[in-house]
Amino acid sequence: MSSKKKIVLAYSGGLDTSYCVPYLKQTYDAEIHTVLVNTGGFSEEDLSKTEDHAYNLGTDTHQTLEQTEDFYQKVIKFLIFGNVLKNDTYPLSVSSERVFQAVAIAKYAQEIGADAIAHGSTGAGNDQVRFDLVFNVIAPDLEIITPIRDQQLSRQEEVDFLQKNGFDFEWAESKYSTNKGLWGTSVGGAETLTSDQPLPEEAWPSQLEKQGPESLEIKFKQGEPVALDGKKFAPVELIQTLHKLASKYAIGRDIHVGDTIIGIKGRVGFEAAAPMILIKAHKHLEKHVLTKWQIHWKDQLADWYGMMLHEGQYLDPVMRNIEGFLSDTQSNVTGKVKLQLHPYRFVIEGITSANDLMNAKFGDYGEMNKVWSGQDVKGFAKILSNQINIHQSVNSYD
Amino acid sequence: MSSKKKIVLAYSGGLDTSYCVPYLKQTYDAEIHTVLVNTGGFSEEDLSKTEDHAYNLGTDTHQTLEQTEDFYQKVIKFLIFGNVLKNDTYPLSVSSERVFQAVAIAKYAQEIGADAIAHGSTGAGNDQVRFDLVFNVIAPDLEIITPIRDQQLSRQEEVDFLQKNGFDFEWAESKYSTNKGLWGTSVGGAETLTSDQPLPEEAWPSQLEKQGPESLEIKFKQGEPVALDGKKFAPVELIQTLHKLASKYAIGRDIHVGDTIIGIKGRVGFEAAAPMILIKAHKHLEKHVLTKWQIHWKDQLADWYGMMLHEGQYLDPVMRNIEGFLSDTQSNVTGKVKLQLHPYRFVIEGITSANDLMNAKFGDYGEMNKVWSGQDVKGFAKILSNQINIHQSVNSYD
Amino acid sequence: MSSKKKIVLAYSGGLDTSYCVPYLKQTYDAEIHTVLVNTGGFSEEDLSKTEDHAYNLGTDTHQTLEQTEDFYQKVIKFLIFGNVLKNDTYPLSVSSERVFQAVAIAKYAQEIGADAIAHGSTGAGNDQVRFDLVFNVIAPDLEIITPIRDQQLSRQEEVDFLQKNGFDFEWAESKYSTNKGLWGTSVGGAETLTSDQPLPEEAWPSQLEKQGPESLEIKFKQGEPVALDGKKFAPVELIQTLHKLASKYAIGRDIHVGDTIIGIKGRVGFEAAAPMILIKAHKHLEKHVLTKWQIHWKDQLADWYGMMLHEGQYLDPVMRNIEGFLSDTQSNVTGKVKLQLHPYRFVIEGITSANDLMNAKFGDYGEMNKVWSGQDVKGFAKILSNQINIHQSVNSYD
Amino acid sequence: MSSKKKIVLAYSGGLDTSYCVPYLKQTYDAEIHTVLVNTGGFSEEDLSKTEDHAYNLGTDTHQTLEQTEDFYQKVIKFLIFGNVLKNDTYPLSVSSERVFQAVAIAKYAQEIGADAIAHGSTGAGNDQVRFDLVFNVIAPDLEIITPIRDQQLSRQEEVDFLQKNGFDFEWAESKYSTNKGLWGTSVGGAETLTSDQPLPEEAWPSQLEKQGPESLEIKFKQGEPVALDGKKFAPVELIQTLHKLASKYAIGRDIHVGDTIIGIKGRVGFEAAAPMILIKAHKHLEKHVLTKWQIHWKDQLADWYGMMLHEGQYLDPVMRNIEGFLSDTQSNVTGKVKLQLHPYRFVIEGITSANDLMNAKFGDYGEMNKVWSGQDVKGFAKILSNQINIHQSVNSYD
Repeated sequence: MSSKKKIVLAYSGGLDTSYCVPYLKQTYDAEIHTVLVNTGGFSEEDLSKTEDHAYNLGTDTHQTLEQTEDFYQKVIKFLIFGNVLKNDTYPLSVSSERVFQAVAIAKYAQEIGADAIAHGSTGAGNDQVRFDLVFNVIAPDLEIITPIRDQQLSRQEEVDFLQKNGFDFEWAESKYSTNKGLWGTSVGGAETLTSDQPLPEEAWPSQLEKQGPESLEIKFKQGEPVALDGKKFAPVELIQTLHKLASKYAIGRDIHVGDTIIGIKGRVGFEAAAPMILIKAHKHLEKHVLTKWQIHWKDQLADWYGMMLHEGQYLDPVMRNIEGFLSDTQSNVTGKVKLQLHPYRFVIEGITSANDLMNAKFGDYGEMNKVWSGQDVKGFAKILSNQINIHQSVNSYD
Repeated sequence: MSSKKKIVLAYSGGLDTSYCVPYLKQTYDAEIHTVLVNTGGFSEEDLSKTEDHAYNLGTDTHQTLEQTEDFYQKVIKFLIFGNVLKNDTYPLSVSSERVFQAVAIAKYAQEIGADAIAHGSTGAGNDQVRFDLVFNVIAPDLEIITPIRDQQLSRQEEVDFLQKNGFDFEWAESKYSTNKGLWGTSVGGAETLTSDQPLPEEAWPSQLEKQGPESLEIKFKQGEPVALDGKKFAPVELIQTLHKLASKYAIGRDIHVGDTIIGIKGRVGFEAAAPMILIKAHKHLEKHVLTKWQIHWKDQLADWYGMMLHEGQYLDPVMRNIEGFLSDTQSNVTGKVKLQLHPYRFVIEGITSANDLMNAKFGDYGEMNKVWSGQDVKGFAKILSNQINIHQSVNSYD
Repeated sequence: MSSKKKIVLAYSGGLDTSYCVPYLKQTYDAEIHTVLVNTGGFSEEDLSKTEDHAYNLGTDTHQTLEQTEDFYQKVIKFLIFGNVLKNDTYPLSVSSERVFQAVAIAKYAQEIGADAIAHGSTGAGNDQVRFDLVFNVIAPDLEIITPIRDQQLSRQEEVDFLQKNGFDFEWAESKYSTNKGLWGTSVGGAETLTSDQPLPEEAWPSQLEKQGPESLEIKFKQGEPVALDGKKFAPVELIQTLHKLASKYAIGRDIHVGDTIIGIKGRVGFEAAAPMILIKAHKHLEKHVLTKWQIHWKDQLADWYGMMLHEGQYLDPVMRNIEGFLSDTQSNVTGKVKLQLHPYRFVIEGITSANDLMNAKFGDYGEMNKVWSGQDVKGFAKILSNQINIHQSVNSYD
Repeated sequence: MSSKKKIVLAYSGGLDTSYCVPYLKQTYDAEIHTVLVNTGGFSEEDLSKTEDHAYNLGTDTHQTLEQTEDFYQKVIKFLIFGNVLKNDTYPLSVSSERVFQAVAIAKYAQEIGADAIAHGSTGAGNDQVRFDLVFNVIAPDLEIITPIRDQQLSRQEEVDFLQKNGFDFEWAESKYSTNKGLWGTSVGGAETLTSDQPLPEEAWPSQLEKQGPESLEIKFKQGEPVALDGKKFAPVELIQTLHKLASKYAIGRDIHVGDTIIGIKGRVGFEAAAPMILIKAHKHLEKHVLTKWQIHWKDQLADWYGMMLHEGQYLDPVMRNIEGFLSDTQSNVTGKVKLQLHPYRFVIEGITSANDLMNAKFGDYGEMNKVWSGQDVKGFAKILSNQINIHQSVNSYD
């Protein structure tokens, strides 16, 4: 029976977490158990290569946790229900999956009786806090080890260490670091460290392949996307199919500038064709089927939900309460949304829904009133002006 | 001295208000005083033609109130400060000016000692309530007369009446009714009365004239746009110049679906190149210079401001309080925003500002921490997890 | 078979609705069907007298709808969950039941195939809008008849009409009009029509009967009050029992000043011993068992819920969504609250709950930290100051 | 010239900060400069004693910063404007002054060229974070030293250390620790560390001295209290005078349970007669003079302001923006509020104000409508029901 310390390492196959395998082994004289949570960003081939790589670096065991479907059911679904775009821009491509992965890793660490969990986050990003926060809650008794953050290592120092230890991999001299997931791909580079430089065409994961416009119809059932152009899909499959379709048009590129959990401003590129299309289409459908105050409160709660998720506070029970609210509002969000894909953009054309509140039986906007009279509106405006009228009359303004 | 009733008629030169001139004259045996408030939608030539037209129809006097600059200072400025887009889409192209015009008309009616104010609104739109509300407050003792709403007239009935009375104008058989103003043009047609039909290319006021991309730099000073590509402009002039530039790219088209004041859903096309560009650019700059909670509260208040303005409640004193708040947040919103114009879209490229909070001296996002340590973040995450941790520990969930 | 018009009259037995019986009969040559919805304000004896009275006045049929339990389940429960006090003062003693009664009346009118519904509201209160709104939604095809509002009748004119028609009842010359219900009693009089006069002692329904303090323990289970001093009660019974207990101390008196639905300010006295005690106790328990952000969002949504209920918009689907949210937050709101009753006031003493988040295992407030170190807090404060620190550094303020 | 390290110590005269004087002197071989910021909690005599005490303990210099007036102008005024009660209970008696004191101390440390600032906070309270946060922002280059927090010292260990070092003061064996300030006194004891024990009568600073009720009239001018019973006072003086008056009735006692900045729940008694009376009176006046939406948004922003102040984030620029908003809403908050003081409680009786929106000229609540007709309200309700009506009609619910 081993008396060695058992360390679970959140492993992605990148330079930072690769560095951690031999570093932790040497420093702690510990068993290393690498674990990768797939939330849709890795293909079978990726996963296999990453596993080989981990063993080459000396991990004692490697585990892949396949959680894409669960990720959709527990996180992405609510981002669609809530039309969540951080700062009206960013679909939380990375944030959403990181917290979810942290939960799976912490539970795995507990299951195998680990003493510590290590992650390869740097000291100036959001991920470190997301990992720490979740580990503190799910596995409060486990030590958290963060070599990159603690030593403030540069990329070159990590490569040097690996080479010195006989791991002479070719670390692709990519100018751009990307993070791919089910809900989009983030892109960082020298430009995103400035405030004024855009990312060049080459930095984006998808390149324009199609020119001519293409029509598309998305069907939603109680808020969830269930069919594309009449063909039914399971949600994860639908997102992936839509992604392939739309990325030929290089749709969904943008730059997010926002507040990190640690108080500094961060700037990051992202490409998220499917999320942007699904959210805009879903939101458009909601404008037709929800009441004004349903939309108002959904917006408030969903905005908060996105912020808390982004900032790693997914486990606060208020998040479950908000998820309940969002789900509850979706009972009528059923219908079809038509749109057109163009190079770099898409246009929502319209919707059809049995629950559409824009119903000509009651009146046509700007045209004819049918169930009320001009006198009714006159009374309405009269009463609505009462308070301002009194205010104006009572207070002697010039 | 005339003992005739004096009616001020809000006059735009369109069919509805043209109908009202002879109708009111006949029905009330009254003096008719037409008034048009220009908030940037009319050229000198338009104004002159409209005046002639009013006299031809038999108005006793016609007055043009030129209020474009005032409109910017009292309304548009705050829509920029607040990045106001109703339902995240619509810059309030029409709503914003209608309320403002109503105030000017009501004051004019009081000045000339009118007995009544007439407007040509239909019974199924927002404008009727905006006019009524403002008139009730500014001129509570004046009667409000609304022939189109009260008689539920169709377009054809109005034309027939005018012809019968010898006014044989050619009423352009336009398929689309547009409403042009400083802050954009609305477009309605048969399609916008449905939920599923997009507007055809021909319906849009501006057609694509340029293909190749074009760079643009907008300078903001304390939240207000003050220069384009280094050239200073007064704000109204800047908006008009930007409009000309950007509409060659057919930028700023969209369809707004939203809740009218009277509870029905409305759908309307709009083209608003300058507003969309200015708001997106301004908002992007703010992401760099404001704190997280400044952005949060600006969003809350501005969203409400937009709703109240849209719904005609501009005169509630809370609107003045919100304007004060928005202005107060703009002290650091100074800097330049670079963007690129493309056919049908534009891309924000970046900003430069002396007030930029994304400052490498403190740390680079995702890279290196400079003024804090890994230990500090560990402590931060520890404390931040306290409550959820206690919650998880106390409550026995499985 | 009768060809007469069938009018359902919302009947309370007071002067206004008594006037309506003969008035409607004469004016419309109609069948009159009085209906009274008991939501806890009427005893068996009251109900029987009121029925006799209605028949004396000439109603064709009289129906009592007993809905107290339903009222608790569909409205009051959520007011407790949300700790709803309008303007931090008023438990919605009347508003809550009026809307609920309107729903029952509209459904009854549909069931018996009525042509119209009549109510006795005046033209300057909230009730008229609550009735109209609900009737418009539940029974949109039925005419709404409002004799008191339409004729702007004074109390004396109503008495005169009744006497002229042979109904020579003694209308108690009460100086104060009260409205008693399960959730409290409202009190209006000459004083409440001023802004500066308090109600005199005699105006209050309950008079001080006990001096010495008395301890009380209320048990809540998932947000609902279930026991008093260890004795189990069904909720309605608990409210009524608590009311008897606490009104001996003349607890729960206050004056509510607020905005009516129609824009004027209203001022009304109320006595609501049980609601005030239950809400304060429930809220106190929640401070111990809910997280900070659960409390924050409950407050937001409950405040809105109270406003919408007060303003008669109970049937908007957002209200069902909010009820779902509030219920969802109550899963841990279980425990006992101790309090002391004194003349005119009560004091919350403390709570015991298995879900209490104030748990000494983690640390004692202001004393000793147990699961974190001073270093952790130092790091926490460091990171939390980052953004303000950067802001201060970047912007040259003196 | 001294080469010794210069430490500024935030000094209150209590055991914790007394411990720090000799401890810091010994441990750092440093100059100690004690500083006390008076925000209204100390009399001349207190200040003089505390100064002597500091010199006895060996401080090199002692400085008293008199900031009561400034404290009112920069903090308390806004708590009145915003009617700030944390969790609807606590007027922030301690929180408000602590942050303000921290700012003054940090500036003093910079002025005298200190190398470090020390404070005596424990590791389980809010004060530590308030001090750290403010020091990090105002004096980011200064070291922060926290002996009590770092060593997790108990009260007895501190007394022992002082005695061993020859400081044989009598440390009053008070069962209750109190913190007195302009805005109230907090009270902690063994009971407040439990969830279920109330504080006994003896624990409260003020004891009941008067029985018979007493009338009082407070005049507000643009939101600020300016006179009591017709006698003008400067605000600080008014608060102190009101405190003396009302504490004879033992008014203003309560227990606050809330979330600390560090995530644990805290429970603390407080006595705050003047704050509770001023806030309730001010709020009551606002109900009469502000519009519905002014009250709504004031509540939102003030609640946030209180939370941020409580949590030490006073220096975020959003706080200045909120202060501007709150001030802006006070232009009409002028009038007199009448109330009655009773043992342990007070009752608001009414207000008089030239800006009162409850104005009989327009209509009496629940009685007669004067500037609108029954028909107007019918139209109002009709239009207001439109959306729910359409929703009900479109969606087939049973």
